[in-house]
Formats: sequence, C-alpha cells, structure tokens
Amino acid sequence: MNDKIPIEKKVLSENDRLAAEIRDRLTKKLIVSLNLVSSPGSGKTSLLERTLETLNSRLNMALIAGDVQTENDAMRLIRAGGKIVRPLITGGACHLDAKMVTRTLDELDLTDVDILFIENVGNLVCPSSYDLGEDMKVVLISTTEGDDKPLKYPAMFRRSSALIINKIDLLGLSDFDLDRVKKNAWSINAGLKTFEISCRTGAGLEAWYNWLTHLVAQKKETGAKIR
Amino acid sequence: MNDKIPIEKKVLSENDRLAAEIRDRLTKKLIVSLNLVSSPGSGKTSLLERTLETLNSRLNMALIAGDVQTENDAMRLIRAGGKIVRPLITGGACHLDAKMVTRTLDELDLTDVDILFIENVGNLVCPSSYDLGEDMKVVLISTTEGDDKPLKYPAMFRRSSALIINKIDLLGLSDFDLDRVKKNAWSINAGLKTFEISCRTGAGLEAWYNWLTHLVAQKKETGAKIR
Repeated sequence: MNDKIPIEKKVLSENDRLAAEIRDRLTKKLIVSLNLVSSPGSGKTSLLERTLETLNSRLNMALIAGDVQTENDAMRLIRAGGKIVRPLITGGACHLDAKMVTRTLDELDLTDVDILFIENVGNLVCPSSYDLGEDMKVVLISTTEGDDKPLKYPAMFRRSSALIINKIDLLGLSDFDLDRVKKNAWSINAGLKTFEISCRTGAGLEAWYNWLTHLVAQKKETGAKIR
Repeated sequence: MNDKIPIEKKVLSENDRLAAEIRDRLTKKLIVSLNLVSSPGSGKTSLLERTLETLNSRLNMALIAGDVQTENDAMRLIRAGGKIVRPLITGGACHLDAKMVTRTLDELDLTDVDILFIENVGNLVCPSSYDLGEDMKVVLISTTEGDDKPLKYPAMFRRSSALIINKIDLLGLSDFDLDRVKKNAWSINAGLKTFEISCRTGAGLEAWYNWLTHLVAQKKETGAKIR
C-alpha cells in the first residue's frame, strides 16, 4: 500500500487548506466550533439533545449531524428543538472531511450563531486525521466501552481538547474504572479537560453547559481560536 | 478526492488476491476462520476470553488480536488460556488487511488448529471493505450502543454472516430494544444469524459455543468455505 501514501498526503493537505478557510469563516463570525468524535453509540447525539433542551433559549446553536447513512440523528436534533440543523451523510465514508463541511455550511444561515457543533461519524480512528476547521475536538467515551480505549486509540485522545465520559449511571456494572480511564487519557494528553456525565440522568451536565457558555463568551471577547 | 479512487481500487484488488490466498491456505488445513468486527468496546475480546475458557479443552483455537495500538488484547487472550495468540498492531491504520494477516499467519503454527479468530480493529466502518480470507465476518453490537446501528452502518451488517448482541444484562437501562435491533439488522441482511449474549453473566453463550463446534465439524466434513 506504499503507492497510496503520496495521494493521501495530497488529500490531507487539500483538507487542511479547506479547514483553514472554514476556521477563518467561523472566526470572522465569532462562532465557537466543536467537532464531536467517538465510537458509535457513545452518546454524541444524546449529549446534543440534552444541550439543546437546556441551552436553546440562551445560545444560538447550529448543528451538523454526520453519519454514514440515515438522517436519524438530524431528526432527533430537530425534535429536541434544534433550529439550525443539517444532516451530512457520507454515503459510506468513515469520517467527515473539510470539503463536506464547507458544502454543508454553505446551506446554513450562520447569522447570529454562537456555537456550531459538528457531530462526526462514529469512529474512534479515521476522524482523528481530518481537521474540520473546528476550535476543538471533543472526544466522548462511555463507561460501557472499557477504560483502555485512550491507550488503544491514542491519536483521537491526543488531538482532542476535552474528554466527556458518558453513562456514569452505569458505573459498577462493568469493570470500567473512572480513575483509570482518566489516567490513561492523561498519559496520552495531559491537557485534556474532562467531564463525567450521564445523558440519561443528567448528572454532571451543568459543568458542560457552563463550559460551553464560557467558550462562547470568550470567543466574543477575544475573537481568537480557542484552545 | 476523486484522484484517490483508482488507487483505492488497486489496493482493494491486491487485498482480494491476498485474501484468496489466505482462504486457500486455511481451507487446505480445514480451519474455520471468523473475522470479528464491531465498535470499540462491544466485547470482542471478552467474547474470545469466554470462548477460550469454555472450549479450550475441546477445540484448538488460534487467535489474532488486531489493534491500532497496544498488545493488551493479546495479553488478555493469553491469560484466558490462549495457546496460539498473536497481536497485530496496525500502528494507526483503521482496519486489518489481508497483507497484515498473511504476515501474522506466517508466524503461527497452524498444525491441528480447528478455528482461527481474527479480532479486527474496533471500527464499524472501514473493516467492512477488507476481505481477510475468513469464512465469515461476525459483527458484535452491545445493548449500550443504540439499536439504530445496523441502519447507520449498513455495509458491516450486510457483509456479516452472524450478529452477536452483547451486554443483554444491561437491557432495560437504556431505550435499546432487542426486537428493533434485529428488525433493523434483518432489513439490511435477512440472512443474519443472531445470538443474544452477555459475556459478563454468561447468558446465551451456550448457543454460540454450539455453533462454533458445529462449524468446525462441518468444515472437517465438507472442506468447503462455510457460509
């Protein structure tokens, strides 16, 4: 597969160019942008549903729901109160890329939007390589997935700025250890901010909401890419 | 990304050639081969641990434990009694391919092996495209992942021969519906054989063990690729 490498490099650098354009476009509008990544079923859509229900009256949120197939997630987000929602179906591809996001952003009215959530395809490997022009990647893991995931999928945890540990209501039903998963994640990326939540019970979500609100305020104040 | 397509086709057809060689090699030795695929954390390694504990005295099993990083899974399988175990670290790649499997098989003594398990990288998208020379793909899903996964990742469910629904001890703790996931899976692939199990409690595993034993007997009798 050596003959694939030069092409992949070319594709990635074209992706980086488009991602820089997206970043520039969102920064000019003072929009915070988060790229949500995780395994399938870790709770990206559930987290966005909860976030819409709680913050919809305070923040103007735009949401892109990426998936290999189906518009199910986009429908769920609309039902949860999302006003600016677009599905982004890859039709088989294992990750979103900047070109797809550019096309989808072209269809959205971004006037007065405070924050853009890009829900990536459920995949802990491939989306780590594609910059979508976001301020940060936020990686989710659920307590039913095993606490060794940061060690087994290091690129994703290295390139994320925040780690959300979801389904803490199911702690104790497996040998998942909260301290161990954080230790494993910090051994890959010492700067990872962590949240421990349950989208089902609502536990821990207040800290997440506060952080989002803080990011929006910070962006409006400084206009800079947030880290 | 159009310029990537011809290369990808070439890589795939080279993969198919190598996969056919693997299939031929395993068939000559009358070895049943299963390619286990799933999201990260669905329980592929746990299932193999359980299978080793129960069938190790009856079947001669070889196991290849694929991962992006770490030999953790291979170590777990050795601790569970695996005698012919090799880690296969992709070093970043999102799936196993036939070339990697060929190299790993070269390191294994396959004399008198009844069944080969290839544990793929945890990823519901990319591994679906790569034939590893296996008799069948077996896809796992856990009840904590959501019952819409077959619709969102159709290629994997279409190309698998069996579906293992794991973590049934956690049913009722989410809105996962056993009938709905099977209906969704069968809408993609009506021929999918299903197992409902819990690696934690052991529920439902007897049917899985019986099936494996049956496959091994069938292979020895007919010598053919099993479907």
